[in-house]
Amino acid sequence: MRLPTSEDVRRAKAALLGRVVRTPVLGSAALDALTGCPTVAKAECLQLTGSFKVRGALYRITTLPPGALSAGLITVSAGNAALGAAYAARELGARLTVVMPEKAVPEKLAAVAALGATVVKDGVTDAAVAFERAEALRAERGLTFVHPFDDPMVVAGAATATLELLEDHPDLERLLVPCSGGGLLAGAIMAARTAGSSVEIVGVQPAGADGIVRSLAAGRPVVPPAISTVADGLTAPKPGEVNFAIIAGAGVRVLSVDDGAILAALGEVVRALRVVVEPSAAVGVAALSAYGELRDGARTGLLLSGSNVNWRLLAEGMIA
Amino acid sequence: MRLPTSEDVRRAKAALLGRVVRTPVLGSAALDALTGCPTVAKAECLQLTGSFKVRGALYRITTLPPGALSAGLITVSAGNAALGAAYAARELGARLTVVMPEKAVPEKLAAVAALGATVVKDGVTDAAVAFERAEALRAERGLTFVHPFDDPMVVAGAATATLELLEDHPDLERLLVPCSGGGLLAGAIMAARTAGSSVEIVGVQPAGADGIVRSLAAGRPVVPPAISTVADGLTAPKPGEVNFAIIAGAGVRVLSVDDGAILAALGEVVRALRVVVEPSAAVGVAALSAYGELRDGARTGLLLSGSNVNWRLLAEGMIA
Repeated sequence: MRLPTSEDVRRAKAALLGRVVRTPVLGSAALDALTGCPTVAKAECLQLTGSFKVRGALYRITTLPPGALSAGLITVSAGNAALGAAYAARELGARLTVVMPEKAVPEKLAAVAALGATVVKDGVTDAAVAFERAEALRAERGLTFVHPFDDPMVVAGAATATLELLEDHPDLERLLVPCSGGGLLAGAIMAARTAGSSVEIVGVQPAGADGIVRSLAAGRPVVPPAISTVADGLTAPKPGEVNFAIIAGAGVRVLSVDDGAILAALGEVVRALRVVVEPSAAVGVAALSAYGELRDGARTGLLLSGSNVNWRLLAEGMIA
Repeated sequence: MRLPTSEDVRRAKAALLGRVVRTPVLGSAALDALTGCPTVAKAECLQLTGSFKVRGALYRITTLPPGALSAGLITVSAGNAALGAAYAARELGARLTVVMPEKAVPEKLAAVAALGATVVKDGVTDAAVAFERAEALRAERGLTFVHPFDDPMVVAGAATATLELLEDHPDLERLLVPCSGGGLLAGAIMAARTAGSSVEIVGVQPAGADGIVRSLAAGRPVVPPAISTVADGLTAPKPGEVNFAIIAGAGVRVLSVDDGAILAALGEVVRALRVVVEPSAAVGVAALSAYGELRDGARTGLLLSGSNVNWRLLAEGMIA
């Protein structure tokens, strides 16, 4: 298994320069009061396509041979990875097919199609079916599969978000990272290593989708008995092999938070920082509420991973 | 009457460096689709205290003699100017009294008090009473009056927002500026002059609070027969004398937009840019909807002036 290196992270940074937004790092007295720590937040919610996912997709596709781009690409995703890949493919002139679940949010299906990707969804009842369908189409049509999270170049691309944060705030002591497939978390570990930072990295995932917590306990990627959470961006069935190797190897802590805490944190983040976030992006603040040991005054960073939120859910969060 | 100069604007910029946030400039394909022009938006909604007002207040107070700070300051405002002044006074170690209307939003009264200012509100039934009360207290207690918008140093401070935008986007062709007392608009005119930019500056105000439109027609600051708009940050009774002199002297256009267009634009801006804005900040996008002549493909800038919104109103905007 090929793992990403610091050189990959540095190359990803150079490749993405000027192609993605260097997102601002936000903070406020209200946020510090909320978290109990001096806190800054990397606003990937303001990234192109509304999430950090475009970083990994763009970098992955830039590393493919030209023939692969013209033959066409295929990926699997219900949401942010699909949007990121569709944007990246359009930017780089590649045809892209995205296998999405039938029950994906209609706005996301439409947004992916609007970026020029071909959406396949009929009969795609769950993630397992989606991966099977993608493999069949790949083989049949000579496409190149771009994994939504379990790929060393996708991890190197995702790492650039943390790398930028550590450039802006080299004195961070702790970084809370949303995780599911584990690409952003593995990327954060790689970025800290690349930057020579001793920041403590802590993963956070929904209690109803705690594949990484379970996998770390089991010593290998395992699937939870059920996946059920309001944080729809954190519903990968299990961590990627590449990602798990990095996460387990680094010995980082991974905490879980329940949906009530995530929803409360959603509204709090919007009110304290004045940016739109999706529930997945709020798990760090939820963890700061739920785990007293995190409220120890450490200089804390958050990765606000995305803003592709159901607007009705957000509206409810505003007036809760 | 002392008008601000380009030298004042440059001094304000130097004085505010590191003291306020250099707010990001945002854009998105969704915003361009909405406005019909290549558009960028200066996100003062992410500024300290949730609006650009802190710039003018901080710069004004830095230019006062030390004796004035220790004797104490007084100002008048229902909202963003009060928050900005309270923050600035606390930063610079000055005691501040704020005369606010009795009917001011309770959250804003509380936020101003939380910043350490003394709030006076009993019997303050409207803006005229507020200014009278402030003058009486100033004379009685030897305080220094800090005007919320009609002051050359406040204008120079406000100008720094536009100056930063023009540094980041020197090729802007048109800039749409929310206006009421006229400080941000006068500041934008001064900033363009300071930067040597030929950007066309256009003021936008609510139809229900169109004091600048009426004043330009009358050739002097006049008060509209009534002030009624959802854009609660744009309800100054009439333009300041300093501001009016700059605005009328520059010959800029000022357009008005109705509350329906403002509310529609509020939700559109939040969805397209993923930041929280208050209705006042949405008047530029409302004008782009209402005035076809603005949709001419010009490289357009918006000043997203603030984010101190009523959360219930915002929630309604999310799901409209």
